[in-house]
Amino acid sequence: MSVLDALGGTAAAGTLYGIGVGPGDVRYLTLRAAALIGKVDVIAYFAKRGLVGNARGIVAPLMSPGRHELRLEYPVTDEIPAADPAYQGQIRDFYETSASAISAHLAAGRSVGLLSEGDPFFYGSFMHMWRRLESRHPVEVVPGVTGMSGCWTRANQPITWGDDILTVLPATLDAESLAERLAATDAAVVMKLGRNLAKVRGAIERAGLMSRAIYVERGTMENERVVPLAEVVDDRGPYFSMVIVPGNGRRL
Amino acid sequence: MSVLDALGGTAAAGTLYGIGVGPGDVRYLTLRAAALIGKVDVIAYFAKRGLVGNARGIVAPLMSPGRHELRLEYPVTDEIPAADPAYQGQIRDFYETSASAISAHLAAGRSVGLLSEGDPFFYGSFMHMWRRLESRHPVEVVPGVTGMSGCWTRANQPITWGDDILTVLPATLDAESLAERLAATDAAVVMKLGRNLAKVRGAIERAGLMSRAIYVERGTMENERVVPLAEVVDDRGPYFSMVIVPGNGRRL
Repeated sequence: MSVLDALGGTAAAGTLYGIGVGPGDVRYLTLRAAALIGKVDVIAYFAKRGLVGNARGIVAPLMSPGRHELRLEYPVTDEIPAADPAYQGQIRDFYETSASAISAHLAAGRSVGLLSEGDPFFYGSFMHMWRRLESRHPVEVVPGVTGMSGCWTRANQPITWGDDILTVLPATLDAESLAERLAATDAAVVMKLGRNLAKVRGAIERAGLMSRAIYVERGTMENERVVPLAEVVDDRGPYFSMVIVPGNGRRL
Repeated sequence: MSVLDALGGTAAAGTLYGIGVGPGDVRYLTLRAAALIGKVDVIAYFAKRGLVGNARGIVAPLMSPGRHELRLEYPVTDEIPAADPAYQGQIRDFYETSASAISAHLAAGRSVGLLSEGDPFFYGSFMHMWRRLESRHPVEVVPGVTGMSGCWTRANQPITWGDDILTVLPATLDAESLAERLAATDAAVVMKLGRNLAKVRGAIERAGLMSRAIYVERGTMENERVVPLAEVVDDRGPYFSMVIVPGNGRRL
């Protein structure tokens, strides 16, 4: 019996699994995640229109032909800002419909594995299904390696030493708040760069952190890019990009 | 060929692997970590005197008899506060000796896998070996599921929603700073509780967060304990304990 079969465990009927698939490299799935992907009745995942779906792409090497897949396709992505009520209404409807589709499988006794990039409970879209379904169906969440762990690993930078404080900031904050928060922490990760990259660069500059800031795009994936933020001239980053500012804490 | 053999990869001669072993449950090792544990020439790990070693304990189900192990035993643990120069001197000497022992194996062409709880670059003791050895030997760091991901998963609490800011605080901060930082963030994790548990409880109270704070001890391990912080009367926590304060961000 293989290590995966011996330790990975099985899937139970009618159970929803929130499967963290890690930062991008399929080798960074956990044993539990990899075992479940081979065993659940239905593999579910979110995807943007016209694209494979990030989480589905990550697990491709683990998928055999003929699996039952449930593709949940966003009606909108970033054409509309996330704060716009029109966006929120459409996304809410989409989450309701998606939860119903998953629930129907669960009610019929099928196990469903919903793939989630990184760790499901850390800014994961899985959470929107979890809150709709967890009172009605058995749920197991499988933690994953976060995207930020993948990024600081590939940047070859320990993020926190000794008693360092780490602050994780969404790039959607206003420039002022970003700069203040950055200046007040020992180590930082700025997520969700997208069209906010220029603003983040300005905030890092104002916080006096440009010499320590590193830009990581698609960390642990193909076409990964790791460069000092000071050398990045792009005004926006892709979905999988972040800025890390490693801490300077106690080195023994 | 098993999934682990097909995807996990191999170990290269004379290379140091910093292997993140995750939060405690052996199923939360990554495929890469599990493959390396089966393949490196030497399994190295830190341990406190008289104990198995936390990371070594986590991977026990993956260890076959007759493996070459390098146990690196701390000369002191928490008998002396970490800020004490006597402690720091002893630990520094210990790290130097440990790095030399690892380096001797690497120089002889052996691959060494140094186990690290959680993620190696997130407050990991591995970092103290990494900074001494990475200029002299090839090093690969394998990111892992952090202890905090294991804890919020077991607490059944998504930690960050929408644009939540997450602050990770070491409990070693003074009470005043802790309370201020806690009051200024959306979501928080307080690590390294140990003898600081009573102080952390006071800071959570002052920050008005007691109703949302959850205490997690040994998350994902045997004898795991998850309780509202308000119900915890202990004055200190074990090594593997933390307080989490889940965020209240945008739910769609």
